[in-house]
Amino acid sequence: MSSTNEEFNLSGSEALKSVFRNHASGIAIITGRDSAGNPIGFTASSVTSLGSNPPLVSFNIAQGSSSYPHMTKGSKLAIHTLDSQTLHLAQRLAGDRSKRFDGTESNGPFDVPVFEACPAILIGEVRERFEVESNAVVVIDVLLASSHEVPAAPLLYFQRGYHTAGDRLADNS
Amino acid sequence: MSSTNEEFNLSGSEALKSVFRNHASGIAIITGRDSAGNPIGFTASSVTSLGSNPPLVSFNIAQGSSSYPHMTKGSKLAIHTLDSQTLHLAQRLAGDRSKRFDGTESNGPFDVPVFEACPAILIGEVRERFEVESNAVVVIDVLLASSHEVPAAPLLYFQRGYHTAGDRLADNS
Repeated sequence: MSSTNEEFNLSGSEALKSVFRNHASGIAIITGRDSAGNPIGFTASSVTSLGSNPPLVSFNIAQGSSSYPHMTKGSKLAIHTLDSQTLHLAQRLAGDRSKRFDGTESNGPFDVPVFEACPAILIGEVRERFEVESNAVVVIDVLLASSHEVPAAPLLYFQRGYHTAGDRLADNS
Repeated sequence: MSSTNEEFNLSGSEALKSVFRNHASGIAIITGRDSAGNPIGFTASSVTSLGSNPPLVSFNIAQGSSSYPHMTKGSKLAIHTLDSQTLHLAQRLAGDRSKRFDGTESNGPFDVPVFEACPAILIGEVRERFEVESNAVVVIDVLLASSHEVPAAPLLYFQRGYHTAGDRLADNS
């Protein structure tokens, strides 16, 4: 074994950014309602499974996000997975807050706003929030899902842009 | 707005699996050492940023994982991002535990075992663990990184297989 310490020349937030620039994330949009019943939503790159028994999902969010105050314990949310055909939704829900909902959304279970064009929609409930510095990990209990059987190409984010998935390299044996 | 409740015909863990089957994740390998100094490591699909100031990363792990007892507060870890050229490392670190390290690894900072073939390696320290049911969210303080400037295709996981990234669809404007 050799020693390679000299190559570790990045530190702190520069280290984080350099590494994550090339780390791909699946893209989702998350929607819900504020206390007045208005739709809220945003594009998220941190949605991931946290176990299947019971079924749990987590995502990370800045506490300063306009959506965060409405993600209290028991709040119902919709997590939509996206594909190359729904790129426009990723862009819209990452853009001007006043233009994220335009009436093309539907009312899903628990009156949560949903975008039916997405390949899969998961309905969940906020179980717990873990606050760390100015951010938070939000843990969701999975309740319901609507999943189309279309074999669409998932939407990804890396190198400051949206990508579609490419070639299959290997099965998980 | 229409109402679409009738399409939400999946619940519980079936709902989770159906949605996440088509949600792509970037693939990383995480390495460290147990209390006896032996290398430990595993393949992870949940590595994500948790804010840049201070720089934090999170990942999810089962508490029953053989690596979990060694991820105590202050433990040093290496998080490697992978590309299509390092698929074999994703496979090896997801396989037989006795064959995950074969001497091709190097000693990185803090004596953490690292695989230099990976496009980027982040060194961090366990800050906090949030246990939820039989799983946990592990929060890492980012310390150092070694990042190659190769524009490699990130390695992804979805539909029970490894994939490479495909076409760039749009910049993040």
